[in-house]
This record gives sequence, C-alpha cells and structure tokens, in this order.
Amino acid sequence: MNLILLAPEEIHHDRLACLRDPRRLRHLKEVHRARVGDVLTLGVAGGGIGRGELTLLSDDEARFTFDGLDTPPPPPLPVHLVLALPRPRMLARSLEHVTAMGVKQVTLLHTRRVEKSYWQSPELDPVKIHEHLVLGLEQARDTVMPEVNLAKGFRPFIDERLPELLTQRRGLLAHPGMPQACPTGLTEPVTLLIGPEGGFIPYEVERMLEAGCEGIHLGPRILRVETAVVALLARLF
Amino acid sequence: MNLILLAPEEIHHDRLACLRDPRRLRHLKEVHRARVGDVLTLGVAGGGIGRGELTLLSDDEARFTFDGLDTPPPPPLPVHLVLALPRPRMLARSLEHVTAMGVKQVTLLHTRRVEKSYWQSPELDPVKIHEHLVLGLEQARDTVMPEVNLAKGFRPFIDERLPELLTQRRGLLAHPGMPQACPTGLTEPVTLLIGPEGGFIPYEVERMLEAGCEGIHLGPRILRVETAVVALLARLF
Repeated sequence: MNLILLAPEEIHHDRLACLRDPRRLRHLKEVHRARVGDVLTLGVAGGGIGRGELTLLSDDEARFTFDGLDTPPPPPLPVHLVLALPRPRMLARSLEHVTAMGVKQVTLLHTRRVEKSYWQSPELDPVKIHEHLVLGLEQARDTVMPEVNLAKGFRPFIDERLPELLTQRRGLLAHPGMPQACPTGLTEPVTLLIGPEGGFIPYEVERMLEAGCEGIHLGPRILRVETAVVALLARLF
Repeated sequence: MNLILLAPEEIHHDRLACLRDPRRLRHLKEVHRARVGDVLTLGVAGGGIGRGELTLLSDDEARFTFDGLDTPPPPPLPVHLVLALPRPRMLARSLEHVTAMGVKQVTLLHTRRVEKSYWQSPELDPVKIHEHLVLGLEQARDTVMPEVNLAKGFRPFIDERLPELLTQRRGLLAHPGMPQACPTGLTEPVTLLIGPEGGFIPYEVERMLEAGCEGIHLGPRILRVETAVVALLARLF
C-alpha cells in the first residue's frame, strides 16, 4: 500500500479523511507501523494524489489531514487487454500486475482451452475483482480504477466486440510462433490479445488475424500467462 | 510442463528415458492426460531437446523412446540478476519467472529492508530452490539450470563480489527516482540489481553507484518485486 486510496465519501471539507475498514487499518498498523504525526501518500478514487498527516489511529478509525490532493495520477497505458480467462489464482495475480502497470481496460475472454469451471470461480465476483484492482492501484500509487468486462463466448466476442475494439486501435495477438517479434516503444492505442495456458487453438488464431490483428511473439520461450502479460506490456510501451 | 526435463541418468542407450518420480508422473497423467503413443517434448539437463514417444505409463514409471535430443535449448539472457531477498512466496514465484525468461545467474542479497527472518525460510533450502528452477525450465522448454548464490551481508557483497560482477558487465541499478529510464534492446552482458519491497536505502544506492552502477527507473509506478523483475528483463533484452 504505497498509496492510501480513499473513496470520495471518506473525504470531508477537502482536508480531512476518515477511514474505518479493517483491511486498511490493519495495513497501517502492521505494515506501515504508522504513528500519529506520520505523513503518508493519499489519493482519491478517480482523482488526485497528495500527502496527508495521520492525526488519529484507533482500533476502528484512522484520520488524516491534508492540504490538497492535486498531483495527477501516473499516466495510463493506451491498451485494452483481452485476456483468456486464467485459472483463479493466476487471474488474481494478473489483475494486480496489470493494474499496477497502468492497464485501464480488461476483457476476460472464453476460449477453447479455458476450463469452463473457471467461470464459476469466486474470484470473478465483482467484489473480489475490485479488491485485486484496489491492491494494484495502491501498489502503483494510481487512483483510476480499471474496467473489467467478461466475454463468455468466443464467437460473439469476435463478431460483435472485436471489430469495435480494433476501431482506431492496433490489434496485437500475442501467440507463440507468430511471425513478428513483439514491437517496442509504442505510443498509439493497442488492443492486446493473450491466450490461455496451452494457447489459442488454430481456429481462434485464424479468426483474430482475419479480424485485422497482427500476430506477435516473445521468442522461443513459452511463458506462463502472468509472466507473459507483464513482459508484453513492458516491451510494448 | 512444456518440456519433460530428464536427468542424464534417466536416459539409457541414447534412445530410451525412464522416469519414476511422483511429480512428473502425476503431471503427465493429470495435466497432459498422456497416453501411450503420445509424442511429447523432452530435454536433458544441461543439454539438447527433442520429441519422444510415450511407450509405457504405469503407477510408478513412464518410458519414452526418442531418436535424438539434439535441438539446442533457447538462448540465455546475458544477465547476472542480483535480487534483494524477497519474502518467501514472492521468492518462489520470482525464481520461476526469471528462470523461464532465461536468467542463468542469480544472487540473492541481504539489504537493510530485507527482513532477517526471510533468511530462515524453508524456501531457501537448495532442494526447494532447485524445484522452482526446474518448474521455470519446464515452462520455458529450457534445459540449462541457473546458478543461485546467497549474499547474506551487504557490505561484503559490495566490497568483494560486486567489483567482479562489474568486470566486463554493465551494472544497472533499478530504483525508483533514478535519472535514467530503463534502456531497451541490450545485447551486452549486464549485472542487474533490484531492491526489496520498500527499496534500497540511500546509503545502499550510493555505494552501488560509487561501484560503477548506472541508476535506472521504470517510470512513476512502484511495482512489486515480482512484477518489476519481469518488466525490467523484458525491456532490457
């Protein structure tokens, strides 16, 4: 928690913040070992960042005072990430990684090699997803919550949503064996598609290439999804 | 397990492999759902890679026949990674990530913000470390085991080992706030130093810069160690 992310309703008179949830209170005490008088980084969801002084820390409340939260959050990555739904624990970690790196649009996609049971995982509960996004934002000192959409059918996604995602965006399909090495230093908007463990099947690759995506690869090494997604984002932007 | 990593002593007459350990047998059955006649990728530790046919799969043994394991493993990254010892679970994942990406030299370093208890973790048992390295190699279809060294004192490391690590290697110190952005597309040998959660302390940064390291950063976002290490390796090489 390199930033304490505040909901707008936790802020009073533009200079006082009160928080009461057990997770952040515990973190303040156990990880920050915070004491009254400490100055920590605060941010308001969707808004600015600043420094605030801890004025009270009790069992059920922490209070900060600050002058203004007016530093803008770090810039987002210009990417819409389309990720074949990973298995639950890897989903949780991948959401934290990509949120910390600045991704603001995520679509979780069903493909042939996604196990159907993954769609029943409690990790897909919006409350759980929100928790992982908050952890990613707090880590990276960001305040802007990503949007996460579910696309539970591959064909409807290809027919109805992908064309729209490729309007004024470069589509990049990351898949082992594609002809082009992952480009670097991009600044234009990108839709980045990443397959599941075991990869996209040939039919899926074909459909995405037909839709206008360029196939890219990360070299001869096959990486786990959570490694590949970080490596791709780090190289692309 | 995209490659079945064989010890030299598991290979007989250059064309037959027998394996008996429960982990790989279980993986063959439960993940690969392998059946006699299936053709899978095999590699011999420290050596080549090839395809082999499963000729027997019982409760306590699997046998493969193959013509030759003569495809070379993927090229390594020209990097010696010096990583402040992460907390145990993050160490395990980081070792798998960096092994999959092709790192062959790892030094785990004590720094001021490394909790001393981490050095007592069972994850540092050479047998446990070896397990994570094997998982990384199997993931990336590599056969060459990384070397992992422990440097339990910061000053002895700086005085005795770092100078040697910087002989004919470019030293890069990854630390938030350093002046230079992480370079890309390097081909020369690098020693890459990455701090713990909470970062190196100013004294440590100073000593590493004095020793000849260049300070680099990954932008305004503070990433978890396991995210940062993958992002740095992906950008650098």
